[in-house]
Amino acid sequence: MDKGRLEAFSDGVFAVAITLLALNLTVDGPGHGPLIHQLGRHWPQYAAYVVSFSTIGIIWVNHHSLLRTFAKTDRTLLFLNLLLLMVVVVFPFVTSTLATYLTAPSRDAHVAAALYSSAGLAMALAFSAIFRWSLKDDRLIEPVPPEMVRRATWRFTGGTLVYVVCIALSFVSAPAALVGNGLVDVYYVFEQTPLSLASGTTDEPGSPEDKRRRPP
Amino acid sequence: MDKGRLEAFSDGVFAVAITLLALNLTVDGPGHGPLIHQLGRHWPQYAAYVVSFSTIGIIWVNHHSLLRTFAKTDRTLLFLNLLLLMVVVVFPFVTSTLATYLTAPSRDAHVAAALYSSAGLAMALAFSAIFRWSLKDDRLIEPVPPEMVRRATWRFTGGTLVYVVCIALSFVSAPAALVGNGLVDVYYVFEQTPLSLASGTTDEPGSPEDKRRRPP
Amino acid sequence: MDKGRLEAFSDGVFAVAITLLALNLTVDGPGHGPLIHQLGRHWPQYAAYVVSFSTIGIIWVNHHSLLRTFAKTDRTLLFLNLLLLMVVVVFPFVTSTLATYLTAPSRDAHVAAALYSSAGLAMALAFSAIFRWSLKDDRLIEPVPPEMVRRATWRFTGGTLVYVVCIALSFVSAPAALVGNGLVDVYYVFEQTPLSLASGTTDEPGSPEDKRRRPP
Amino acid sequence: MDKGRLEAFSDGVFAVAITLLALNLTVDGPGHGPLIHQLGRHWPQYAAYVVSFSTIGIIWVNHHSLLRTFAKTDRTLLFLNLLLLMVVVVFPFVTSTLATYLTAPSRDAHVAAALYSSAGLAMALAFSAIFRWSLKDDRLIEPVPPEMVRRATWRFTGGTLVYVVCIALSFVSAPAALVGNGLVDVYYVFEQTPLSLASGTTDEPGSPEDKRRRPP
Repeated sequence: MDKGRLEAFSDGVFAVAITLLALNLTVDGPGHGPLIHQLGRHWPQYAAYVVSFSTIGIIWVNHHSLLRTFAKTDRTLLFLNLLLLMVVVVFPFVTSTLATYLTAPSRDAHVAAALYSSAGLAMALAFSAIFRWSLKDDRLIEPVPPEMVRRATWRFTGGTLVYVVCIALSFVSAPAALVGNGLVDVYYVFEQTPLSLASGTTDEPGSPEDKRRRPP
Repeated sequence: MDKGRLEAFSDGVFAVAITLLALNLTVDGPGHGPLIHQLGRHWPQYAAYVVSFSTIGIIWVNHHSLLRTFAKTDRTLLFLNLLLLMVVVVFPFVTSTLATYLTAPSRDAHVAAALYSSAGLAMALAFSAIFRWSLKDDRLIEPVPPEMVRRATWRFTGGTLVYVVCIALSFVSAPAALVGNGLVDVYYVFEQTPLSLASGTTDEPGSPEDKRRRPP
Repeated sequence: MDKGRLEAFSDGVFAVAITLLALNLTVDGPGHGPLIHQLGRHWPQYAAYVVSFSTIGIIWVNHHSLLRTFAKTDRTLLFLNLLLLMVVVVFPFVTSTLATYLTAPSRDAHVAAALYSSAGLAMALAFSAIFRWSLKDDRLIEPVPPEMVRRATWRFTGGTLVYVVCIALSFVSAPAALVGNGLVDVYYVFEQTPLSLASGTTDEPGSPEDKRRRPP
Repeated sequence: MDKGRLEAFSDGVFAVAITLLALNLTVDGPGHGPLIHQLGRHWPQYAAYVVSFSTIGIIWVNHHSLLRTFAKTDRTLLFLNLLLLMVVVVFPFVTSTLATYLTAPSRDAHVAAALYSSAGLAMALAFSAIFRWSLKDDRLIEPVPPEMVRRATWRFTGGTLVYVVCIALSFVSAPAALVGNGLVDVYYVFEQTPLSLASGTTDEPGSPEDKRRRPP
């Protein structure tokens, strides 16, 4: 399996899943009060959309950063990647459920928020599994220095723990859990991962090979 | 992040979003009067579909024209691009809402048209942000002459202002606002942007590199 | 615009549109009689699905055969291609409408079949427009001999006329119009187009360039 | 037709179909009892989702393993591939139907499970047809040794027979048939196909050509 098709398929799934999030944006239609009030009432849909879009968008960025460091693929990676995608594809469902129940009587809201945060946790775990796979047997183009591995491992562990905290938070306040998930996104947008620093993901001019593929 | 995968993911999102527009095309089904009358009654769906399809199609063309001038990518670009896609993905929703309320009693129609035009404005602003990002620090393959930058900036500002006018127009007449959005599309189809002139986007024979990638 | 991204975007739209056809496959669910009877009653959905899937699949094959002969792209081609895609994306809607009304009282069935056949006609016309565009100004990698152009033109004209006949047939019998559309597909599966003969689309071993892109 | 675009289109269809599976994940919403009970009641949706996601994921892996051994494509392959995709696209429908009826009174559950297993059988047959196509006329980059062909043929026959058994099993117990389909997936995850052994699909470092396409 060449990496190109693995990335193409993953990109396709990411792109469809992120776009299906918008199917959760709805209004009730004529006969359900003024449109402006309907739009106002549906704020949980918009909030959940923005957080989930950011989450999938960031996991896509990180997925790419990680895969470009791989020297090879094998069946294990293919199936770990399918596991990650199986979780990503669930996001439109958990997002829709959270949006529906965010302002519901408390117990249902707690369950919906815990379900949502669990999807984040499952995604973090699947992503960590891919990262761990990559550390063995010359699977990376350039070996990552042990210090970098240690820091990246800490960060993955940290991310995983934050989702565990969000699950706990769900049983206190569903909106707080949604905010918690959103803060994870904000953190990833503004912080550089050691991994990306290690592999020089950023601010890199188009390489000659890149230009060969995409003529100017 | 190589540009290829950024484009592939963006193309995926554009392709899914543009296709989901068609989910708004519906008939009520048996028991709701003759089909021919149902089709006639639903003209706002078709009008909104054509305008939104054109808008996303044109932004896709412009997105490509712009990205092919970039010499490199960085995390800032990735997230600005996600911001643009977050707006693009919202189009099926605002299109559906506009189609539902276009012929509704006036206040709801105004709100729906203002919502629709606001999505156009948000898209124009996100696109401008990507354009501005590209002007700094040798991010372009070939620097754009200042005169071209000035003209392109004017055009982006112009496009943004037209959407502001469409929002204002929404509160006069929803169909007029839809026509306004459609006229923006017509303008972009028939006019060359200075940017595309500058980067020689058009009428260019397949380069040798292109042929190497796509065998004849 | 390099051809690669035009094809990638088009492929994305074709892939999403062809997959959305399956959203029309449904059963009514518990409480609407035995499942086996529901499946039997819904035969128009399956028939319409198979015909529309074949139609989009074939236009995708032909789209590719045509584009690979092009030496360059320009804005006109981009917008003609968007026009073609705008019609392709409408297929899930017209397919669903035809399936719903195929066995309805005659007038509605006639309208639904005429709508369906009109989408086929629009697709044929948009495709012809792209073909005609390609014949001017050295737009092809290798010029097509006049004899081939004449034969291809005849075939396009023929395909267009068949859809006109299907529209007429719709007002006699909706199922007959669906069969007519299906026969067009069967014809294209088993017959070689002069165009594809001309450009040597078939039975061609992977060229060295192809191997370079997809390592064995 | 170069293989690259055939793969890209197929990947697109696989990606959309696998993601649409998640549209079957739903809750009934407020007014239908506590959310936690709704989630519990809907376990057939989750079970069917996991099995179908795995099935499409695996067929995607196998599709890629197979296509990379092909030296050329022709119209026959294109249409056999469309046939395979036509079956893949049906999975969200049969999955949704099975999930709806899995716990229904027995006759409907049997029909839903037989429908589901038939889709698996149709997919296996379409895949075998593509495999058989590849064995003739120098269609492979490297000829597969007869012993490998024999073993691969046995395995394909075996997979086909297992689906026939699942269809029979459907009339005994729908959940057992779902488990049967899931076991086929588990088998394919953990076992190497002779085909993949023959073509060296696994554990292969990125070739120089691969690196040329995806700059490190």
